[in-house]
Formats: sequence, C-alpha cells, structure tokens
Amino acid sequence: MRGLYWDGHWQLREDLPKPEVWAGEALLRVRLAGICGTDLEIARGYVDFQGIPGHEFVGEVVAAPDSDWLGRRVVGEINCVCGRCGPCQRRERSHCRNRTALGIRGRDGAFAEYCLLPLENLHPVPETMADTTAVFVEPLAAALAIVQDNHIRPADRVMVVGDGRLGQLVARVLRLTGCDLTVIGHHQGHLDLLARLGIATSLEKDASPAECATLVVECTGHAAGFATARRMVRPRGTIVLKSTFSDTSEIDTTDLVVNEITLRGSRCGPFRPALRLLATGLVSVADLVEAVYPLSAGLAAIDHAQRPGVRKVLLAINPPEYHADKPILAQTRLLDDSLQRDTPHG
Amino acid sequence: MRGLYWDGHWQLREDLPKPEVWAGEALLRVRLAGICGTDLEIARGYVDFQGIPGHEFVGEVVAAPDSDWLGRRVVGEINCVCGRCGPCQRRERSHCRNRTALGIRGRDGAFAEYCLLPLENLHPVPETMADTTAVFVEPLAAALAIVQDNHIRPADRVMVVGDGRLGQLVARVLRLTGCDLTVIGHHQGHLDLLARLGIATSLEKDASPAECATLVVECTGHAAGFATARRMVRPRGTIVLKSTFSDTSEIDTTDLVVNEITLRGSRCGPFRPALRLLATGLVSVADLVEAVYPLSAGLAAIDHAQRPGVRKVLLAINPPEYHADKPILAQTRLLDDSLQRDTPHG
Repeated sequence: MRGLYWDGHWQLREDLPKPEVWAGEALLRVRLAGICGTDLEIARGYVDFQGIPGHEFVGEVVAAPDSDWLGRRVVGEINCVCGRCGPCQRRERSHCRNRTALGIRGRDGAFAEYCLLPLENLHPVPETMADTTAVFVEPLAAALAIVQDNHIRPADRVMVVGDGRLGQLVARVLRLTGCDLTVIGHHQGHLDLLARLGIATSLEKDASPAECATLVVECTGHAAGFATARRMVRPRGTIVLKSTFSDTSEIDTTDLVVNEITLRGSRCGPFRPALRLLATGLVSVADLVEAVYPLSAGLAAIDHAQRPGVRKVLLAINPPEYHADKPILAQTRLLDDSLQRDTPHG
Repeated sequence: MRGLYWDGHWQLREDLPKPEVWAGEALLRVRLAGICGTDLEIARGYVDFQGIPGHEFVGEVVAAPDSDWLGRRVVGEINCVCGRCGPCQRRERSHCRNRTALGIRGRDGAFAEYCLLPLENLHPVPETMADTTAVFVEPLAAALAIVQDNHIRPADRVMVVGDGRLGQLVARVLRLTGCDLTVIGHHQGHLDLLARLGIATSLEKDASPAECATLVVECTGHAAGFATARRMVRPRGTIVLKSTFSDTSEIDTTDLVVNEITLRGSRCGPFRPALRLLATGLVSVADLVEAVYPLSAGLAAIDHAQRPGVRKVLLAINPPEYHADKPILAQTRLLDDSLQRDTPHG
C-alpha cells in the first residue's frame, strides 16, 4: 500500500505491506488524516519512532472481529493498552506501561491507506459530521484534557499562550466554561479567527497585566512561551503544559515554591465529549483547515505543515470515497485559490 | 539589644536598636527561635535580605495596641500584609504583593531579643505547651500546606524524599492521613526517628519500585532529590516541591507532559491546625531538637545548623524566663551530654 514513512527521512512509499488483521483489532481504511505538531516533532527526534506516523484520522472499518463494525466510519483513540498493568487497572489507560501509540510508539499510524486499531479504541462518527470535522476529534480530545483535569470556574481569569493549531482548539474549549479568557499569540490572522468567536486576544508584544490569571495553558512549544505563561499566572495559580519544549533551563523551581505555582503536564483526552462538542457545533473547526493534500503529495503536505503559523494541513488518503465529500472539496478549492502552489490537486 | 545580624556575614551584635512599637503591631520578647533551612539559604543569597533573620519563634507580648495581649506567650505568622491587593482580597495573604516577611523580606526577624509583628499574625500558645514544642508551629504549618492543597487519600501511596528537618515534619503530617507512606533519606539516624513512629523508611541507595507513588514530596533542596521524586511518582501523579534547589536543568518538561505529572510549589501553611496537632500530641517533635544554644553562642549555633544531617538547632534568646522552663533545660542537658561540644551552656 501507499503511505508516508519516516526512518530519519520522510518518504512517500508505494511498497508498504497492508497491515495483517489479528485478534481484537480492526483494519481501517484511512479517509482523511491530520498532520500534528507531534508528527513534526517525531522528525526532530522527539521519540525514537520509525515507520508510518499519523494519529489524527477518520477512516472506515474494513475488517473487524465483530461484524457490526464493518463499514462504519470511525475515529480512534491512539493508545493501545495491555489492560493488566497498574495504570490500566486504575483506568489511566493512556499511561499503560506496555502501550503502543498509533504512529508514535511501536505501531504504524494513519499516514497510509490502511492502519490497525483495537475495536475498543474506536468511536463511530455521526453520519452528519464531515470528515474534515471528525479528523479534529483527537486533538480536540487533547484540548478537553485540560477541563477534565482542572476545575475551571466561570469567574476565573484564564490565558492561552499560543495561537497555533493546539492553542486554537484549547481556546475553543475554554470559552465554553464562561471564563474570562485571553489568547496571547504572534499571528494576527490566527488571533482574528478567535476574535470572531468572541474570544479576547492579544499580541505577545502588547503587554497584558502580569500575574493576572488563575490558570494559563502553554501551547507554543517554546521556552519563551513558558516564560510568558509564568509572567501571566498569579501566585497559587496553575500553568498547564500542553506542548513540550526542549529548553528547560527557564524553569526556576524556587519561584515555583515561593509563589506556590502548579505546573501540570497534560496529554491525551476523552473522545466522546469531543465528538459531542463537534456534533452540536459548540466547537467549530471549519476555519482551522489550512490545506488538504492527496497522499500522493504527502511530502509537500509535510513541508507545508512545517511553515511557521500554519493551521491544520490534512491528507486525503483514500480519494475515491473522499471526492464525494462536498464540503471538503469546496474547502480545498478555496485553499488552492489562495495558496496557488503546494496544493497540487483540485 | 542583642541579636544575630546578616549583611553578607553573620555577626553577633549588642548594639541593635530595640524595635519601636507602632500602630497595629505588637512588640514581642523572643523566648526561643529555630534555625531553618531558609535562614541558611538567605546567607547563600536566596533572597536579598540584610538585617536580623529568624522566623520560627515563640515569644511574649510586651507591648500591644490591645492590652488583652500583654504577657501572652505567642507564635506568629511570618507574612505581614497590606489587606488591599488582589491576593489579600482572595484571602491568599501569604502572597500579598506588598508583604514583608519576618526575617526574610523587608522586616527584621526573631534572632534577637525583640521583634515586631502585627497583632493579626499572632496565635496564643496553650499554657501546657513547652517552648521547644511551640517553636515548631511555623515549620509544621508549612508541612500542613501539603494536605491543605492536595487531597491525600488513605489508600494513596505517598513518598517523602528527604529525612532532614523539613522531611521529618512532612512525614509526621502525612502519616495522619493513613496513607501508605515511605520516607527516602540518606541518614539512618533520621530514618530511625521515623521508623519509631511506624513510618516505613528506605535509604536512597536501596531502590524502591519506580513510579509507585500518587504523590511525592521533595524535601531535600537538591536537584538529585527531584530526580528521585520523579522516579518515584507515577504517571498522572503529583510532585510537591517543598524546598528549593538552584540547579533546575534536571526538569524535563516533555516528560511532564507525556506522563502528565503535576509539579506543585508549596510554601507557608495554616498555624491553627499546627497548634492543634502539637497540643494533642498527634504530631510530636521532642526528638527533633538537635541542640539549644544561648543567643550569646548564636554564631556557633549557625555553624552547627549548617552541618549535614543535623536536626533542629534552637536559640534560647531570653534566658531569664527561659531557664524556668524545665523541659527545655532537661532537653538541653541531654544534648550537652551527647554532643560534648558546641553547646556551651548548661
């Protein structure tokens, strides 16, 4: 089968073996996949992964141990677990000691025509939900991890540092709490998307009052973003680390103790609430699609996703069914017109 | 008056001006003061303080705007606040933006014959409580901040890294939750004190299972202690930073995100529960006194407190009343016998 492959270099390969179905797992035909910051981090050595990346996707079940699933359009949780270790028994499955993770750890991912996931990881997508919406379930679930793990009160002052792919979804989740939310970013165009939703925004260079926020979410992946988050959080406040950054020297533990700051790392989140919020339209994502590339132009898609300040780049992987999806093509054509290159399809 | 003074060097001075009483503040005659890690950190440049250090004390009110307080034996909260700023209005007084802190920030402390504190900071000491017990109220309150800010469940597995002055008090508080507690340390003698209380202990070199604890309290003040804490905490667990360490390069934020670890800085805590736990004997501290020095031997006391692995060194500051306090003298004599030097009183 065809797919994108990483082994120190990105390659578009035609000779990848179609995954073999085995007990408990479903074979999925990938329809649409999203390129995530983590995929780009893998290529920078974030984890030691070799194979097919990709963990944001929507696909169809083409083989499964339970025939009820055949033909269903699904999204899938990425952590595949043993069910027996301590974290599994505590229902903290995303921390299973023996886990594999789709396209990240010990398991090929969704940047290919087919991939495998256990049935228990799958969630059916409502019929009325477009593929371009469903492909955001996984990153939206990751954003929901923040409200899953932190009690955000309507009267709280909350800030998001970073207006990129992750910051956009985090802000759209946080606004639902009714909190006093401000997003701090570098890209006026991205901030404008949020302003249209009624979210207060500020360019980094326009100083906001220091130590004003109960909770700050760091979504930039840079040490400078952490420094901004620290400046904004008030004593006894919380900084949620939603992205990773390699330069750790900026963290002053004495400051954390004296000001009783909490740092909380946050990763994967719950899929069902993400599906509900997208289905009801409480979270909208249509304005977050930067471009849709066919898998044949996958290397150009990766290049595009790496440009500073881009929104979500998608890979249309099984075009025959895909081309019937009107909203996607309309979106793509619009993007083609505006970008004029690097989207060699129409 | 006589006192210990820090201005880049420790000095025993006889010429310090007795504090002038002013509106709202009480003049306290210090009976007994404790030397804390923070006092030693001040001398290493932790904060830019010049003056009389000392914030752990028990004293008597000798002048006060409310005569009901005259003659009372008291302990005192160290943060003196404005009452008007955001943190004060949120009742987070220890984070007052305009605060002074006894012997730490903008206010002379208790290593002298007299000091000042606002009346609102004072807590009367029960008559039956020895000075050598009451002097532990402030550090015990700091240990109680952990259970004030974290819900520790009886079925939780909890670890304390560090068996020194702070770790001892933290462990004595945590055991009251009924949790499965282990203290990891370097000093067999200190661990033995805890073992006598039924607390499980382990020398650092004897490996405990990794990632076993829901919550770990870092009490060592060294980056190596943080590394141990990280090894012991399980995914989605919490590390409470109770002491500061200057080498921050060990904190891997990617690890925090992937394993969803929470780091929580913790500083001052509630005095009233500390008084209750000492009064009822639920927390005992008699075995934590290393030595009692008169103020005249204050420089030797500071030297003693800086030795590795010592327990609490106390300064007996107003000996006339103090010598009437039988339990203290008994304790001191015992210590004199065992130490045979550096405790030049009897």
